[in-house]
Amino acid sequence: MPVSAEFDHLRVVLVDARNPLNIGAAARAMSNFGFQHLRVVNPYDVAFQGARSAVGAAAVLASAEKYGTVAEAVADCSLVVGTTAIGHRDLQHSLQRLDAGAPVIRAHLASGPCALLFGSEKFGLSNKDMSHCHWLMHIPTREEHVSMNLGQAVAVCLYELRRDPAARAKPVKGSPASSADVERINETLLVVLRASGYPKLNTSDSFEGAVRRMVRRFRLQQGDAEFLLGMLRQMVWKVKKSEKAEG
Amino acid sequence: MPVSAEFDHLRVVLVDARNPLNIGAAARAMSNFGFQHLRVVNPYDVAFQGARSAVGAAAVLASAEKYGTVAEAVADCSLVVGTTAIGHRDLQHSLQRLDAGAPVIRAHLASGPCALLFGSEKFGLSNKDMSHCHWLMHIPTREEHVSMNLGQAVAVCLYELRRDPAARAKPVKGSPASSADVERINETLLVVLRASGYPKLNTSDSFEGAVRRMVRRFRLQQGDAEFLLGMLRQMVWKVKKSEKAEG
Repeated sequence: MPVSAEFDHLRVVLVDARNPLNIGAAARAMSNFGFQHLRVVNPYDVAFQGARSAVGAAAVLASAEKYGTVAEAVADCSLVVGTTAIGHRDLQHSLQRLDAGAPVIRAHLASGPCALLFGSEKFGLSNKDMSHCHWLMHIPTREEHVSMNLGQAVAVCLYELRRDPAARAKPVKGSPASSADVERINETLLVVLRASGYPKLNTSDSFEGAVRRMVRRFRLQQGDAEFLLGMLRQMVWKVKKSEKAEG
Repeated sequence: MPVSAEFDHLRVVLVDARNPLNIGAAARAMSNFGFQHLRVVNPYDVAFQGARSAVGAAAVLASAEKYGTVAEAVADCSLVVGTTAIGHRDLQHSLQRLDAGAPVIRAHLASGPCALLFGSEKFGLSNKDMSHCHWLMHIPTREEHVSMNLGQAVAVCLYELRRDPAARAKPVKGSPASSADVERINETLLVVLRASGYPKLNTSDSFEGAVRRMVRRFRLQQGDAEFLLGMLRQMVWKVKKSEKAEG
């Protein structure tokens, strides 16, 4: 996942961040997901300096820009989106769920810069901060606990922006065992059971059918079928050998 | 987003976690997204105790369970999924992207318990830990920086599990202004421009057309149209008044 020109258009803007760990965590998530432009508005200075030790975030933090106001931090952006935990404030803005808003941001990034704003740990974005935004976005959380950790909120938003809506589960590794291999396992298992004096064994078709159905449900991979057959053959050898010794 | 029976089936398992902030962050994300069952395997004891102060995570942490081994921690689970940053290890397991694997986990949660494993901050899950897993999952990150912060990785995974694939952007708040309201704005704007001696103004249809198209592009909401018309009318009043005074 290289840094694309498209995603180079995103500016992550932290407003009034107070905790160095959170600034560092935001920068690390940006580095993980391939976003480079971090802007901090009115950071508590110790926090901004302290953040610089965050794991793997050195490049993002080194190029981070400091602004005095939200207006300056978003000046070059043609779309400004604020994040909010909603809470009890009456919002004057249109509000989108992250999973619905992210595609709108992605579409914009193809043509121009977009700022994604995060408020302070304690109070979020102020009404004045929000007045610079085109619309607001929230991460869908449990109503009883909407307030997310700042670093985690940044990570979740950036993950969603880089998400591939077309992603599908890959088939499991390797190729499935052939029916012939599976049948060899069935036969060898029956031999071991017979030789071991397995009490429920009988020669009826129904017992053999039950064994065959069970092994089918294993959905064996080719390699595993060979592995298992080797184990069973060793058991056959051992059991027959002890039979001879006894007989 | 209430805690559903379905999501009550997930167990978040932290193996060898060392940092209390990360255990607390994992618990907070669980609380945000409505997952209750936290299990810690072989935690550094100070970390486990220290985590108990994490914001909003009290309920999850109070009911967290401590285990000595991965085998014990996943004993009641019929699906065990490990998370990994891939890195350079040759994986023996099938590996899914988070966005592709999450629907598989969701489908399983409808019928039975699933464990989602996270390894230590420094080393991730060991090969032995992984041998308890049905398959592995990774968060798609930039190849040059795959290692995520533990608390952020947990938050991103749980967010994806609770994501609504059918979410669509909502239309903007309010209803669009009627064409009559928009036309009143056009007319009033032309009056102000004329009265102000705007140099480029002429009476040709082409200038009026340019004004009309510009105002159309504002995609005005009903309330904003009224707001704007009030401003323009005030300007008309002021300009005409100063004309009289001068004249």
